[in-house]
Amino acid sequence: MNPLYQQMETSVFERMSLAAAKHGAVNLGQGFPDFGWSPEILEAAAKAVVEGSNQYAPSRGLPALREAVAAHYGRHQGLDLSAENICVTSGATEALAAAILATVEPGDEVIIFTPAYDAYAPLIRRAGGLPVEVALQPPGWRIERSALEAAISPSTKAIVFNNPHNPTGRLFDRDELGVIAEFAVINELVVISDEVWEHILLDGQAFTPIAALPGMASRTLKCGSAGKIFSLTGWKIGWLAASTELATLAARAHQFLTFASAPNLQAAVAYGLNEGDGWLQPMRDHFARARDRMTAGLEAAGFAVLPSASTYFMCVDLAASGISLDDEAFATQAVAKAGVAVVPLSPFAEQEAPRHLIRLCFAKRDETIDAGVEAMARAR
Amino acid sequence: MNPLYQQMETSVFERMSLAAAKHGAVNLGQGFPDFGWSPEILEAAAKAVVEGSNQYAPSRGLPALREAVAAHYGRHQGLDLSAENICVTSGATEALAAAILATVEPGDEVIIFTPAYDAYAPLIRRAGGLPVEVALQPPGWRIERSALEAAISPSTKAIVFNNPHNPTGRLFDRDELGVIAEFAVINELVVISDEVWEHILLDGQAFTPIAALPGMASRTLKCGSAGKIFSLTGWKIGWLAASTELATLAARAHQFLTFASAPNLQAAVAYGLNEGDGWLQPMRDHFARARDRMTAGLEAAGFAVLPSASTYFMCVDLAASGISLDDEAFATQAVAKAGVAVVPLSPFAEQEAPRHLIRLCFAKRDETIDAGVEAMARAR
Ligand SMILES: CSCCC(=O)C(=O)O
Ligand SMILES: CSCCC(=O)C(=O)O
Repeated sequence: MNPLYQQMETSVFERMSLAAAKHGAVNLGQGFPDFGWSPEILEAAAKAVVEGSNQYAPSRGLPALREAVAAHYGRHQGLDLSAENICVTSGATEALAAAILATVEPGDEVIIFTPAYDAYAPLIRRAGGLPVEVALQPPGWRIERSALEAAISPSTKAIVFNNPHNPTGRLFDRDELGVIAEFAVINELVVISDEVWEHILLDGQAFTPIAALPGMASRTLKCGSAGKIFSLTGWKIGWLAASTELATLAARAHQFLTFASAPNLQAAVAYGLNEGDGWLQPMRDHFARARDRMTAGLEAAGFAVLPSASTYFMCVDLAASGISLDDEAFATQAVAKAGVAVVPLSPFAEQEAPRHLIRLCFAKRDETIDAGVEAMARAR
Repeated sequence: MNPLYQQMETSVFERMSLAAAKHGAVNLGQGFPDFGWSPEILEAAAKAVVEGSNQYAPSRGLPALREAVAAHYGRHQGLDLSAENICVTSGATEALAAAILATVEPGDEVIIFTPAYDAYAPLIRRAGGLPVEVALQPPGWRIERSALEAAISPSTKAIVFNNPHNPTGRLFDRDELGVIAEFAVINELVVISDEVWEHILLDGQAFTPIAALPGMASRTLKCGSAGKIFSLTGWKIGWLAASTELATLAARAHQFLTFASAPNLQAAVAYGLNEGDGWLQPMRDHFARARDRMTAGLEAAGFAVLPSASTYFMCVDLAASGISLDDEAFATQAVAKAGVAVVPLSPFAEQEAPRHLIRLCFAKRDETIDAGVEAMARAR
């Protein structure tokens, strides 16, 4: 048995969703919306299942989807991509796995910014690498040049970057992107950029993919997610966008991880991407209102809420809310006794894990938010 | 860049399918049927897409599917399983990846029987292990005790077994299973048993899962595939069946490879498994007739066909057919000039690669078989 997995816990998202189901709790843990998908995309998928091919898709994805993704990033982010630059994966998790397994070798150090999505460190370890944590500090969560400088060594091979950032909801600014790009170019690093939240921008901001910075297009593996774009997180259609060379390398890993993804769901995502972008602003407005509603409710119940500019998530500072329980203890009793599942932040870091913060998913209908806020008030 | 992937080629199945598409050739390469799926299962999936949840499934799979898989193996193979023993994956490829990444550590040796499915060796290598090839010899393809004995060393950690066997179409017999089980028990090995072809039995045989042998239930990770069971290879719904301990270990790897699979496709597979087994014998009869039709056609065209008792595949011996081209050369000209894609066997081994054998997929409608046979005759 590989000891990495013997010592590993169930992902905190799964753990909290299972607990929510067990206790019949409102689930504000794992990040998924409970509204907002397009019936047309569902119909397109249903039609493709019944009328289209249900045999193996090409390993790198349906050409129509690869073209649609490339065009989408050209239109929205000014990236100059074609189908050759895209490798469709079975969700963004597989995109991350393929990118990390394809680029990291035993002995490599890989920088991650904590709190960090819980898949990064185990994947880096399984690839033989060592995750090197750069701990961002609340409430600003800024990437400081000095912290990055201290983390880089001659063994550094890659940076796993995540922007917009889960769980903090931060959208990093141009200066911070510039620091990462500068270090990446000087040290010839690969940047695996988890940009699945790229469209969930709640305050009218523009999003700059790190690949757009000088010198970065050739060294960035960008991870994207149809689940996050179309509020269909269960579909597990994601992709990597990269230079032809890096996309091809990752496709080699992908071909022996899942080989390919369901053609019908891929076709429906291509349809969605090609349908125009009318969904985008209403989605953002809806999520922004949801964030504001949850913030107001939690603050009225005495919780100290950290600002969130992006993603589905906001953090609550338990200590500043006058709660002495740590994050795991609060989460455990909130789901079991008060009926609301939240996500503790300590599983997002191995070294400097914040133990006074919990994350809530606000991508929910008003009723869900109100029920969740009520339960949170009971959990104090 | 990880040199493993830099030196890796595109999977031979993808390579031949892309060539078939490019040349408008009949595709007898990659293993997928062009008939035989159930409209009811497609309707169940379409309905689940439109009416069911499209958000994250539980990481280990929908409870209904895990229960259905466990019951299916109880009914058909006498295995004593419950939902706790099942981990649903995004296709059998991910089941293999999760099983190998979860059990193999750097320095471990892992035995494979060649010709071997092309995913095994790269996954073992990526896990830090060394694939040790036991070369089966045509036309009998028997697993010999002496060959296995010679391959086992103190570093042997696992065996990746594949029964029924792709690409040879062999169903290994009880004696051969017994030899593997004996070595596994004595040497405390894990057996990753790729049994995706378990139902494609063309001559009325019974199938014995290796987990059913004494001492094997606790050390076997069995890989199964809904795509192969229901002739829906594109769906990429597979699973691992194992002891609770091994299933849990593999689920840890799975949670960071794809996390979960599409709930609507999972629900439709559960529906299919629960609908009763009326589909099974007609499917077998149909594939057996297809095999016989292709064999007769190829023999009439002067090809020496090796016997096949299972899977979608038969092999042709080019040398015995009076063809002096090697497998790759024949496959290249067959797809480009004669209009039929086949699979050369040399990518199925690194050491003793057979270079005079090609594989054809017979899981096709009569028209496809006839067109393929005609093109094969032109390819001589
Ligand atoms: C794959 S489950 C986790 C989903 C997610 O992005 C989150 O909750 O952070
Ligand atoms: C995942 S593509 C290969 C499918 C298959 O089982 C084969 O052709 O051998």
